[in-house]
Amino acid sequence: MKGFRDLYPEKKRIQNYIFSVWSSVAEKYGFDEIAGPLLEEVSLYKKSGDLPSQMYSFVDKSGRKVALRPELTPTVARMASSRSSVRPMKWFSIANCYRYENPQSGRLREFVQLNLDILGSSSMMADAEMILTVVEIMKNFGLSKKDFFIRLSNRKLFEDLVLSIGIKKKDLTEIGRIIDKKDKISSKDFVSALKKLKLSPKQIKDLGYILKVKLDKIKIESKGLSELNELVGYLKNYGVLDYCKIDLSVVRGLDYYTSTVFEVFDSSKKYRAIAGGGRYDNLIKGCPGIGFGMGDVVLELFLSERKKLDVGSKKVDYYVAPVSSSDYSRAVKIVNKLRSKGNLVEIDLVGRNLGKQFNYANSLNVSKVVIVGSKDKGRVTIRDMKSGKESKVKI
Amino acid sequence: MKGFRDLYPEKKRIQNYIFSVWSSVAEKYGFDEIAGPLLEEVSLYKKSGDLPSQMYSFVDKSGRKVALRPELTPTVARMASSRSSVRPMKWFSIANCYRYENPQSGRLREFVQLNLDILGSSSMMADAEMILTVVEIMKNFGLSKKDFFIRLSNRKLFEDLVLSIGIKKKDLTEIGRIIDKKDKISSKDFVSALKKLKLSPKQIKDLGYILKVKLDKIKIESKGLSELNELVGYLKNYGVLDYCKIDLSVVRGLDYYTSTVFEVFDSSKKYRAIAGGGRYDNLIKGCPGIGFGMGDVVLELFLSERKKLDVGSKKVDYYVAPVSSSDYSRAVKIVNKLRSKGNLVEIDLVGRNLGKQFNYANSLNVSKVVIVGSKDKGRVTIRDMKSGKESKVKI
Repeated sequence: MKGFRDLYPEKKRIQNYIFSVWSSVAEKYGFDEIAGPLLEEVSLYKKSGDLPSQMYSFVDKSGRKVALRPELTPTVARMASSRSSVRPMKWFSIANCYRYENPQSGRLREFVQLNLDILGSSSMMADAEMILTVVEIMKNFGLSKKDFFIRLSNRKLFEDLVLSIGIKKKDLTEIGRIIDKKDKISSKDFVSALKKLKLSPKQIKDLGYILKVKLDKIKIESKGLSELNELVGYLKNYGVLDYCKIDLSVVRGLDYYTSTVFEVFDSSKKYRAIAGGGRYDNLIKGCPGIGFGMGDVVLELFLSERKKLDVGSKKVDYYVAPVSSSDYSRAVKIVNKLRSKGNLVEIDLVGRNLGKQFNYANSLNVSKVVIVGSKDKGRVTIRDMKSGKESKVKI
Repeated sequence: MKGFRDLYPEKKRIQNYIFSVWSSVAEKYGFDEIAGPLLEEVSLYKKSGDLPSQMYSFVDKSGRKVALRPELTPTVARMASSRSSVRPMKWFSIANCYRYENPQSGRLREFVQLNLDILGSSSMMADAEMILTVVEIMKNFGLSKKDFFIRLSNRKLFEDLVLSIGIKKKDLTEIGRIIDKKDKISSKDFVSALKKLKLSPKQIKDLGYILKVKLDKIKIESKGLSELNELVGYLKNYGVLDYCKIDLSVVRGLDYYTSTVFEVFDSSKKYRAIAGGGRYDNLIKGCPGIGFGMGDVVLELFLSERKKLDVGSKKVDYYVAPVSSSDYSRAVKIVNKLRSKGNLVEIDLVGRNLGKQFNYANSLNVSKVVIVGSKDKGRVTIRDMKSGKESKVKI
């Protein structure tokens, strides 16, 4: 089906490598794995921006309106809100998600997302740990400062700046959506979308300035500004500030973000965002949080282009080749013995003759072939497939 | 939602342990991991017995009738049929599956299934490797011959025996379904179900005999009998025959099985089947196959009862405790340094005072706490949480 994948062994190996880097870094940085259900009630996603229009939703047999999860944050929020454990909770999850979009490069209808969250902390230290973790994940894929960067913003600061040029509060969400699409539309379409909201030419010019302003040039009073400055200080101490660019045009299309927002991009900005996240202090009552998601589809494209997906291939230690059908019972005992020593051992399962068994063994990347025939009483012939050398061994 | 799970860290740890045993044994026995899509067209499941009536199915936005996969074999068959690689293919998959059933002990609507298949071999050697692998999985969970056994049958043999007592071919499927439910209904209901199919009292008595017959007492001509005898020979050589009981009452509710069928049970038969599978030689054109599935729900119940799920808990190497807010930047640098040496390090993220930080560190199972205060110039205090000993260390 369009937008869905059949992952055969070679491709699944690559996906497993991505998963293993995700979970090893997440665990190293103290995140505990959780898992939520695939199906949630549709109403859970009401703060998820455009996502509800892209959901696979249906009415189940009990009459409930449910959806295949399009993202993980609402599930994490639901789970956190029904749990009164020691805070902060640091959780991660690797889960298949579904969005009915037009499949294209870097976008499928079924994808796997890594989601990391710190719940129960409003400190910018949590935001710094989050950004540190995403940088470490990228570095563990063999990527460096040359390959990727993080666009970092703060929604409160952005909103205060936008309000300071006389734009009305009620227009904030729509302004955010327009800016979120800025990179995907022409500058002409961008300006006309703003005009539709009745922004004056001066306001449009000022907005352009805001989207490019440097942090040290901002002079307004704003809680967002002090948050961002505090975060920048921590990022400097963690040694990851060099990976970040302050960029107030980062809005993120989700309604629940309240403060820090960030996105990870490849340096050439050839691909869609590799990861994105932010702080959501009002999503869970009494429990501030920050999190990010990273999907496997764009990431794999990017890693493949940078030649970082050399995951090797399977190696088979021994292939046991019975010469004729009467040799199978002896062959099985040899298979058993070799396996008991921890070897990966294959044996003929289709009744091939010896020549064809050697062809098959070659296709499997086998180190040694053990030939089991009735002539060699109490012995077998072992052929080293690399050197071609044969030796007779007593069993 | 009913029948769905929220897996918090303690529970997810257990599930991950189960997954790791599954995949490590599967890989050791030469199976390659694959992954298929969650959604398939409804028509794919027409040979899946009762499953279509339990599916979460709906019409997607392109008008296609799709279902959340209730099992994996049809996906594996679809994937195998569109792949012309060297045979046999040995594949495994660990995937979330969905069935709208009444949730009860050992049965949820969302579960994860391990599926193993050997495709492209009609040899009973493949069936033997399959049963060997399921035994090895159980043994790797710490279970022994005392804990579980395999009920083994052959559908061709069963059918030949049933036909030999004069039952009509057209009634075979229905007879199979009745026998499949035998353990769940009373013997009175069993007999009356057979009477409805117009079986004579003699036939009902003969059928009862068939369901209990020993392999060496069967005297009819049957391809199924020679297959089963061949398989028994291989199982003996592999050293796993002791785990198996021939039991012709094993039918399995899926229409695509053609030969070997088997189920894994706990010795006391307290739980539903832990795993089940069989040979399906007509499901894929020109490609015989055998496979089995093992779900995580019954397995976890069983392992938990046998006390085989002691997966330990997370250990944090260092907790770095800044004494006051001005100590964070120094603390962050210490965190960085400790992490660069491979330690799992946590730091205060909520601005707790030192006493509360110690309480928090205790709840985290921390080995050492590093106290970072401005009084100790250039030094930190390290407290060993087990011995309570403190030492001052130069940084």
